[in-house]
This record gives sequence, structure tokens and C-alpha cells, in this order.
Amino acid sequence: MNTSTALLTDHYELTMVDAALRAGTAHRRSVFELFARRLAGARRYGVVAGTGRLLEAIERFRFAEPELEFLREQRIVSDETLDWLADFRFGGTIWGYPEGEVFFPGSPLVIVESSFAEGVLLETLALSILNSDSAVATAASRMRHAAAGKPLAEMGSRRTGERSAVAAARAAYIAGFSATSNLEAGRNYGIPTMGTAAHSFTLLHETEREAFEAQIAALGTGTTLLVDTYDIEQGVRTAVEVAGPELGAVRIDSGDLPVVVARVRQLLDELGATGTRITVTNDLDEYTVAALAASPVDSFGVGTSVVVGSGSPTMGMVYKLVAHENAAGEWVSVAKKSAEKASVGGRKSVRRAYDDRGVATAELIFLGDGPGGEPEGAELAGITREVLAPLVVDGVVQPGSTGAAGIAAARSRHEARTRELPIVARSLTRGDPAIPTEYR
Amino acid sequence: MNTSTALLTDHYELTMVDAALRAGTAHRRSVFELFARRLAGARRYGVVAGTGRLLEAIERFRFAEPELEFLREQRIVSDETLDWLADFRFGGTIWGYPEGEVFFPGSPLVIVESSFAEGVLLETLALSILNSDSAVATAASRMRHAAAGKPLAEMGSRRTGERSAVAAARAAYIAGFSATSNLEAGRNYGIPTMGTAAHSFTLLHETEREAFEAQIAALGTGTTLLVDTYDIEQGVRTAVEVAGPELGAVRIDSGDLPVVVARVRQLLDELGATGTRITVTNDLDEYTVAALAASPVDSFGVGTSVVVGSGSPTMGMVYKLVAHENAAGEWVSVAKKSAEKASVGGRKSVRRAYDDRGVATAELIFLGDGPGGEPEGAELAGITREVLAPLVVDGVVQPGSTGAAGIAAARSRHEARTRELPIVARSLTRGDPAIPTEYR
Repeated sequence: MNTSTALLTDHYELTMVDAALRAGTAHRRSVFELFARRLAGARRYGVVAGTGRLLEAIERFRFAEPELEFLREQRIVSDETLDWLADFRFGGTIWGYPEGEVFFPGSPLVIVESSFAEGVLLETLALSILNSDSAVATAASRMRHAAAGKPLAEMGSRRTGERSAVAAARAAYIAGFSATSNLEAGRNYGIPTMGTAAHSFTLLHETEREAFEAQIAALGTGTTLLVDTYDIEQGVRTAVEVAGPELGAVRIDSGDLPVVVARVRQLLDELGATGTRITVTNDLDEYTVAALAASPVDSFGVGTSVVVGSGSPTMGMVYKLVAHENAAGEWVSVAKKSAEKASVGGRKSVRRAYDDRGVATAELIFLGDGPGGEPEGAELAGITREVLAPLVVDGVVQPGSTGAAGIAAARSRHEARTRELPIVARSLTRGDPAIPTEYR
Repeated sequence: MNTSTALLTDHYELTMVDAALRAGTAHRRSVFELFARRLAGARRYGVVAGTGRLLEAIERFRFAEPELEFLREQRIVSDETLDWLADFRFGGTIWGYPEGEVFFPGSPLVIVESSFAEGVLLETLALSILNSDSAVATAASRMRHAAAGKPLAEMGSRRTGERSAVAAARAAYIAGFSATSNLEAGRNYGIPTMGTAAHSFTLLHETEREAFEAQIAALGTGTTLLVDTYDIEQGVRTAVEVAGPELGAVRIDSGDLPVVVARVRQLLDELGATGTRITVTNDLDEYTVAALAASPVDSFGVGTSVVVGSGSPTMGMVYKLVAHENAAGEWVSVAKKSAEKASVGGRKSVRRAYDDRGVATAELIFLGDGPGGEPEGAELAGITREVLAPLVVDGVVQPGSTGAAGIAAARSRHEARTRELPIVARSLTRGDPAIPTEYR
């Protein structure tokens, strides 16, 4: 596994740099924008995730000899371009929606201000990370609403690529999940990990009782026993007999959950295990979680559906050149013309508007001088908040967005931002975005 | 990025090893099976992909000090277990469907014969890799049929996690795609890479003509020019004016493709560019590819849909203990009892049955002594072929399945195996598997 991220890139980004260097246009100041034309799955809002990972990946976006050798051998770019790549280090400025923030159609989630060549090189990597991480976080955030305050653990590593699994654990945690099954996510990102035993462990032993005894000997009576390998009711009885009423929890991974959960709760109470919790893990998604929220379930383990974005495994984000300096050094706004893929050219800044109770009412996108200033007309828009923040300034990643601190900040930010959304944002049905995007 | 793959693993695999070591059951000889209960998306067949990557990952599945330190600090396992993990190296035997092979519900794609502890540790990693890579390969194989012989390039890196993108390029190539946009896949796996320019390149320049001139100066007249940034017809005219009739190809990324493609072909021919090819790339999937197969398109670029498995981003494969030695050293077949997640316990071998014209007719799964022998009753089944092959023997990865040689073999194997399937396998509608799975 190479630590350079530079080849996690589409071939054409390199040939564009090659052609632009030769044409003398590679160094034109340019603005690229990463955004989603619409919210995948007709979700009510999107959740930005992956920004911290992207910033870490940009710091490792260097063409060292192994990368250059591949490009040279394959004759992908000219020798002059190889020399330029050898010295490449992103030196531009990146504004963006801070990680954990919510977003809407057209929201400029990442704004890259740099030379054309620097900006275009980041396209593939930025989209890979944001598209997949945000898809997971957006699904996870819906599940968090559906669970109505009960904790959720992400346990879908086995249903997505082995490295995407680590990223998915991180994204779900930012969106409010409490823990993950993925150990690498625990090590890399400090996310709490959890898990006790699978059916195979019970099946390995002569009897369910022996399996439970073995697990308790290793993990203590506070552990979670999986009770549905054979007969669930018998499993619960055996679990409490072996562990005593201080048994931490039982896990149920099959059956008609609302019915089974009610019966297991009743049985646990009858057996005196009134403090023993119930966790369920049977192919849950936001809809089944919502259906169980009022049942005596204590926590949820969600696998497949969260790591594959619950029907929307990618956010459909794109990365477009919106402005550049021309040969005369003047800024030009640009956009592709084709109807169904129209984008809005020009530099932008963003304010989120609120009513006087603090509920978000609109995503205001101001065309003009770009982020950082006071956009024209902003004073007329009522109560507003600046959304964009500087993430990289002249090639230097700004503190606070990366590592464990970035994740913690993103998690709190997500909690705060979703609380500000109108109630319709919590709807699990397909529909319009919770607030409109307005261009000013 | 750590090169050890050992923590790409669910927490509970480690706690099960911990409890089983303490209980004295960890070393019981066991058989785990990786299979899909059904074909995701009601596909007609599945395509095995990821096997070579899994074998490479198993060779790097070692607990070195950084991994042990994490487990120690988090108190995930006992000190005795840490000592055991420090010496861990998979020493068992793995049989499996060779990469590129097709599969059906219940097909035992990977059979791990080892101690319980060794087998359980590989669960998460094996599922992560096979579930995601096979989902991509299965979708890609359908697109290959849909394209009716015209070449397909995978260009979806931006729509999936940055490392899953590399694996997806590999899986699509095995399933018959000709090339990828992903440079890391080119470097790691020797897959041909391709790409020329995006809309941003045209927009950077004062005019479309200047952009085309710049691209041709760098890449030659054999390049592919993207002609739909402004007006497609004008784009085609300008492209041929600038490049001459020897222009390699034009790419179209928007519009009503069947109509546009026909018009562009006519125009190219009128302009004398009769050898200039047409490639299309507008959010294609197997259905839109099929709709264009009879049009004068020369090649397809497929992005999002192939890397996210075209509606089925994961294959739903599971990894189950099917047999183990008990305390008395006797083999016991085991399976979880719950109805909707039933699996078939016991050791298995597999033969694919054929009619006398060489068309596959059934997937025969023999319960008994496991792979490698002559299963009882096999001689009665007519023309059959052994499907399982030894992938790892006593901890040693067998040659031919990994690296570039493994990929080349998998690609040929896939081509041969799909050719043997009944014609219904090529149907793009949802339905029953192309051949039934029969247990003997």
C-alpha cells in the first residue's frame, strides 16, 4: 500500500495538466467547486463528511519516484510535466463546508482556489472521499433521527470495501452513531469499538450454555450474549441462568423483531434481569429502526444499510471549474451549457438564513467575490450565518479539521446543525430539501 | 496507512478468539464457508471477484507491535491472547471458487479449513473484499453483455471510496471491461488506463478551438476530444477542423444519446472523419448501454453504476461455521436454526453440471467429505466439472491466483465461464438464477 495519494486519480487529470502546461494555460488562477446538483435519494438534507480525510490526503498528494516512474513508463505525460509533478505540492487555498455541516442542492462544499493545474489534480480524490463518506453520513443521520435517542453502533465493515469500511465507521460516528465494530477505525480515529460474539462461537461449543459460560469467563457478566442461535426464549433463560440478573445485554439477530423484542423484555423482567439491555442487529435500516424506536429495544446495531448509504451509495457530487483568469488576467465565470447538467458559474459565498426562533429557512448562495467577505445584499437577508470556513490557506492545512480533534468537532457540529433544521428534515419519506437553495 | 490488514476486522472476532482460547476450544478444527444466500438484485448469476486481493491481504494479516499495542491499550483481549496473536499467521487451508468464476445461491465461494481461531479471524476481511469486489464484477459482467462486444471503460473512481475505486477497477477488468481511468489500478494491477480531458479543460481556454488545439498539441490527433461543452454539432465541426479527419474519437457526455450519437456519426462522416470513433459517458448503466448497443457508438465509459454495483452495492455474502471437531475429536455439522437465515451445515464439494452441448445446467453441491475428492454420487450426475480449487494449503498461498497473473487468469476464466451459461443468464430483468443450485 503506497502512502502517496497522488495516483488515486483519473488518468485525464494528468493529461489535462500536460496539455495545459504545454499551452501555457496551466497556471491561470482558477476556482473549482465541489457540489451536488440534487440530494441523492430525495433526502431532505445531506451531511458533509470526509473533509478531514481529504485534507490529510492532500498533504500526502505528492509524486515521488515510484509515482513518476509509473507515469514515465506508461508515457502518460511529457518529461516537462514529470518535472513539474515532481515538485508539486498543493499551494492553493480551499474553503469549504466544515465537516458534519448539513448541505443542500448547489451548496459549494469545497471551493478550491489555485492554479488550474493544482485544482484539477485534486478532482478525483476530492470526489471519491466526499461522495462516499457523505453518502454514509447522510444515511447515518437519518437513522439517528429514526432511533429517537437510542444509541446506534455501526457494524457494516463486512459489506463494503475493507478501507471504505474504516471511512464509513468514521462518517457514521460524525453523524451521531456511538460506536463501530471496526478495529482500524478505533485505532486510526479513536472511535469506540464494540462487539462480543457471533453465532459461530455458540455453534463451536457443545451447547449454548457452554458457549455462554466461555464468553462470560472471558468478558464478564456485563457482556452481551447472542441468544438466537437456537430457540430465542430458551437462549434468554440460559443466558440469565449463566450470567445472573446482572447480565449486560442480550442481542437478537433474527425474527420478527417488534414481537420478539417485546417477548424478550417480558421474559428478562420475569427472570429478574430488569437491568439487562436488548440490542438488535437484524439487517436494520432507518425504516426498521423507526419501527422499533418505541419498542423496548435499548440499542441498535446497523450493518449493510449504513455503509452503503441506504439506497444511495454515492452522493452524486461533481467538481466543476466555475471561474478562471483569462489571458488578459481578468476573472471569467464559466459553466458547461448542456441543459440537464447545468451548473452556476462564478465565485460564491454562502450564508444560511434563520428565522427568529433559530430555525434554518434557506441556503443563500451569493454570486460575487467568493467566500470570506461580506457579500452584497447579505445585510438584507435577515439573520444569517457564514457557512464556509478556510480549510487550507496557501497550501497550509488549517488546524482543527483533521485527526481526532476534527472528528470530535464534526460530530458536535452535526448535532448542532441538524437541531436547527425545520422538522420536515426528519422525515424519512422522499421529498424536497428541508430548506430551499436561493441564489442572490 | 498501515500495511498490516489485521485490524480491518470486527472487534468481536478478537473477543471470540479470546474467549475460545480461555475455554480451550479455539484450536478445534473448523470449517467456515463464505457464500451468498441469494443473488443480490435478483441477478441471474454472480461473479466471484476479490479472491486474489484476499489472498494478498491474508499474507499481510499479522499482528505486529502497533496492532498489539492498540488491542492492549483498549483491553480488547487478555495478555495471553495478545501473545497468541503476536505469533499468528494463518496456517490453514482455503479452497474456493477461482476468481472470475460465476456463482449461484449457496455456492461455497471460500472454504476455510483451520482452527476455529484462525478461521474466525479472517471473517470480516474476507467478506469486505468479496462482497464489494463481487458486486462490482457482477454489475460489470451484465454491462459487458449489454454492450454486445463494444469496449467498456470503467471511470467511476470519483463515485466510490478512494481505495474501493482501485479495487473496483480491478473487478470490472476481470469481468471484461477493457480499461480504467484509475491510475493506481494501472500501477498496482497493470490494468490499461485511459482518459484525455474534461469540460474544465475546454472552459479554461478562451474558445473550444483553443482547447482542442492545446489538447492535440500534447496528445496528438489520435486523442479523444470532448465535444459537448457548448454546442455538440459545432464541437464536432471544430474538432475535425482542428484535428483533421484522422481525429481518434469524440466523446459525448450529455444529451439524448441515441439521437445525438446518430447525428454525430452522420456529421463525422460528412466531414470525412469516417474513422473517428464515438465514445459516450453520460451516467450509463447496463440498461442505457443496451439501448445504445445498436447505435453507432464505438465505446462506452461507465462511471457510477459499475462501481456501486448498479443497484446492488454489496452481494450480501455471509461467512458461517459449517462444521467443527467436538471435544471428542469427531466432526460435527452445524448451522444456525432461525428460519430466514438458515444455512446448510456440513463440509461440501461442488461440481457444475453441463448438457452435451456444454451448456451449464446446475450447480451441484455435495455434502460429505469436503472439496478435493470424488463426492459420493458424482458419477451419476452426468457431465460435471470440479469448481473448487485449493487457494491456500497449510498457510501457503498457491501460485496463480495473485498479482497480475491472477488477474489475467481471472479475466479469461470469466469470459469462458459466462459463455457456458444458458442464454437466460444474459437477461437484464430480475429473475431466478440462470441455473439451479441442487444439494446432493
